Amino acid sequence: MIFVSRQEHFNAAHKLYNTAWTPEKNEEVFGPCANTNWHGHNFDLIVTVKGEPDPDTGFVVDLKKLSQLIRKEVIEKVDHKNLNVDVPFMAGKMASTENLAIEIWKILEQKLGSVSQTARLHCIKLYETPRNFVEYYG
Amino acid sequence: MIFVSRQEHFNAAHKLYNTAWTPEKNEEVFGPCANTNWHGHNFDLIVTVKGEPDPDTGFVVDLKKLSQLIRKEVIEKVDHKNLNVDVPFMAGKMASTENLAIEIWKILEQKLGSVSQTARLHCIKLYETPRNFVEYYG
Amino acid sequence: MIFVSRQEHFNAAHKLYNTAWTPEKNEEVFGPCANTNWHGHNFDLIVTVKGEPDPDTGFVVDLKKLSQLIRKEVIEKVDHKNLNVDVPFMAGKMASTENLAIEIWKILEQKLGSVSQTARLHCIKLYETPRNFVEYYG
Amino acid sequence: MIFVSRQEHFNAAHKLYNTAWTPEKNEEVFGPCANTNWHGHNFDLIVTVKGEPDPDTGFVVDLKKLSQLIRKEVIEKVDHKNLNVDVPFMAGKMASTENLAIEIWKILEQKLGSVSQTARLHCIKLYETPRNFVEYYG
Amino acid sequence: MIFVSRQEHFNAAHKLYNTAWTPEKNEEVFGPCANTNWHGHNFDLIVTVKGEPDPDTGFVVDLKKLSQLIRKEVIEKVDHKNLNVDVPFMAGKMASTENLAIEIWKILEQKLGSVSQTARLHCIKLYETPRNFVEYYG
Amino acid sequence: MIFVSRQEHFNAAHKLYNTAWTPEKNEEVFGPCANTNWHGHNFDLIVTVKGEPDPDTGFVVDLKKLSQLIRKEVIEKVDHKNLNVDVPFMAGKMASTENLAIEIWKILEQKLGSVSQTARLHCIKLYETPRNFVEYYG
Repeated sequence: MIFVSRQEHFNAAHKLYNTAWTPEKNEEVFGPCANTNWHGHNFDLIVTVKGEPDPDTGFVVDLKKLSQLIRKEVIEKVDHKNLNVDVPFMAGKMASTENLAIEIWKILEQKLGSVSQTARLHCIKLYETPRNFVEYYG
Repeated sequence: MIFVSRQEHFNAAHKLYNTAWTPEKNEEVFGPCANTNWHGHNFDLIVTVKGEPDPDTGFVVDLKKLSQLIRKEVIEKVDHKNLNVDVPFMAGKMASTENLAIEIWKILEQKLGSVSQTARLHCIKLYETPRNFVEYYG
Repeated sequence: MIFVSRQEHFNAAHKLYNTAWTPEKNEEVFGPCANTNWHGHNFDLIVTVKGEPDPDTGFVVDLKKLSQLIRKEVIEKVDHKNLNVDVPFMAGKMASTENLAIEIWKILEQKLGSVSQTARLHCIKLYETPRNFVEYYG
Repeated sequence: MIFVSRQEHFNAAHKLYNTAWTPEKNEEVFGPCANTNWHGHNFDLIVTVKGEPDPDTGFVVDLKKLSQLIRKEVIEKVDHKNLNVDVPFMAGKMASTENLAIEIWKILEQKLGSVSQTARLHCIKLYETPRNFVEYYG
Repeated sequence: MIFVSRQEHFNAAHKLYNTAWTPEKNEEVFGPCANTNWHGHNFDLIVTVKGEPDPDTGFVVDLKKLSQLIRKEVIEKVDHKNLNVDVPFMAGKMASTENLAIEIWKILEQKLGSVSQTARLHCIKLYETPRNFVEYYG
Repeated sequence: MIFVSRQEHFNAAHKLYNTAWTPEKNEEVFGPCANTNWHGHNFDLIVTVKGEPDPDTGFVVDLKKLSQLIRKEVIEKVDHKNLNVDVPFMAGKMASTENLAIEIWKILEQKLGSVSQTARLHCIKLYETPRNFVEYYG
């Protein structure tokens, strides 16, 4: 078993805001992250899959195909978007890095079969900033 | 003469949108950067000043004081903000990295005297992403 | 279960020196790391906690609070200090990155309850240089 | 148990080319990575070992000795080389990052005893580019 | 005047080898860089242009267009190639980073007019490794 | 004219302390940087030279030789040392990054002739931390 990772990136706006709360409570809990008019980040996304290398190619998975899959299924839906408003798969969820990583896992787990019959999704690692990041293993 | 630099960072939303143009023309010129509901970035800001080291301290400028100045005069006004909506010094200007760097120069050039009588502002370097950045020398 | 990480940094002096040994043996075992008058590093510290996201916030833990805890309980005690001389929690221990990571774990495991009732400490990752680092999972 | 890592680097040429296939099939499967006249990378190699810190040194392993071992047993054999042509331990194998990481594991697992009687090899992490990397745990 | 930069990257094989010299002299002068079967690098290329921001766009140059130009005119010709063998514009020249930067300058200076009538090329910065790089200003 | 750079690194202890002042004044001016028992950093040093590429080699300067010169004349004198106590060329000077860069310039300007008859020293860039750095051009 070997683990293979591909890093992609996207830029997005968001805010942390619970619509069931008053503005005051949002401000108290989330501070500047609740700014009414949004803020944003350069997100870095690392997708890790696991499997055995194919003897004919030496690959667990073709990273060009994995990159294309991530771009088509994830990056195109979040890049230069507002995570609270523009992204159907985040509708009704707090736009936290935790929730975003979990939803990206769900999407890629379903679609990974289109680039490899044998590799399995292992980890979604998502950097909101170089100092704040999350990891999800399903 | 020696050049001394301090790096700070902030997270902000923006869009590239000329209100004198139709939405179609904005979309044509700016593409996804014109997204109605904004997108955002982790900006990195490097401020460079120049001067002679003071023999008593070895410093051109006390970098703790320079950092405090940048945070008070720039970072607090742009961090976790929307550059098009929330930032008075960007009002009426396109929210490009070029214009943002020029405005940050104007602010810091006026205020640098409060941290050093002898150092002069040399350069504002502003990263919008790790791959896109601008430099302004006044 | 999702894993959330926060990176902080500090600058410190230290030496690797076993006081039960002769200077010659220290020099033989530790080489330049045993330099009598110390050397130092910019340390990077990554603290990882794990838990379920709170549905109201989307957070496993509020990273602002986790950052404040790390700064108060760890960074203030080691930043701009001498790890062999100035840091009570390292007294009587070799000032290696391994031992420093273990002691930071002990401190944060005890205090994490003050920022979250449900999150648990998962890993202390400590970079002494960009090329040398340790990880401790308790 | 604590995990200690050392990063080294090397520069090498390679191509992805299965000699049992036609040139057309290689081009179809590997695209530009099959370029007849090779391409190359700056590889970053992170070697992680695990064990208990020695009370006399504070070390799981002396990182200077681990670095020397990696350089002697791995880096000297691949740095400024062609992975398909010049490296005996890759003979007959596809020159993928996956296979390279597995072979490096085999070499270092055999030799680690020469720098530590107690530490065990934990992970070989190999970056082909900053965006493509693999991890192997034996 | 403001300076705007875009970073791209490519992977290539090369060797430093003067065909007018004996193999022994090449080995003596270039050491492992003269390895017969090539070695390679992940190159990072930073292209800087200068000009005044357009009041309608806030741009000195549209970085998407600059990126497309660099990819079409430079990256496609060197990425996953052998700099000594596969790249017409390097024919007959030593494949040093210095010479590569000078040739990239010549190409982009000629073509920059297609993305901006007013911006001028300022600098080609080329990293062969994170520790070795060159800058050329024409 | 082309500019060629080489990055090296060293780890050192220091403090900012003016022995002509009282401890109180040092504490007031330098804050934690004046800590009696020192602190330290991982310094990154970038040395830039300028000249014309030699047609026979494609080199302005052989970077292996420049690296060896920097290591012999600078790194060996400061690495794993205390900049205030162990480094003769810093005796009697405040151990600031500014002063350290100026002294490194003086050393390398004198010695550069031993690796190249034609290249001239252009810049010493010295990072004390990733966020604080100086540049000196003689």
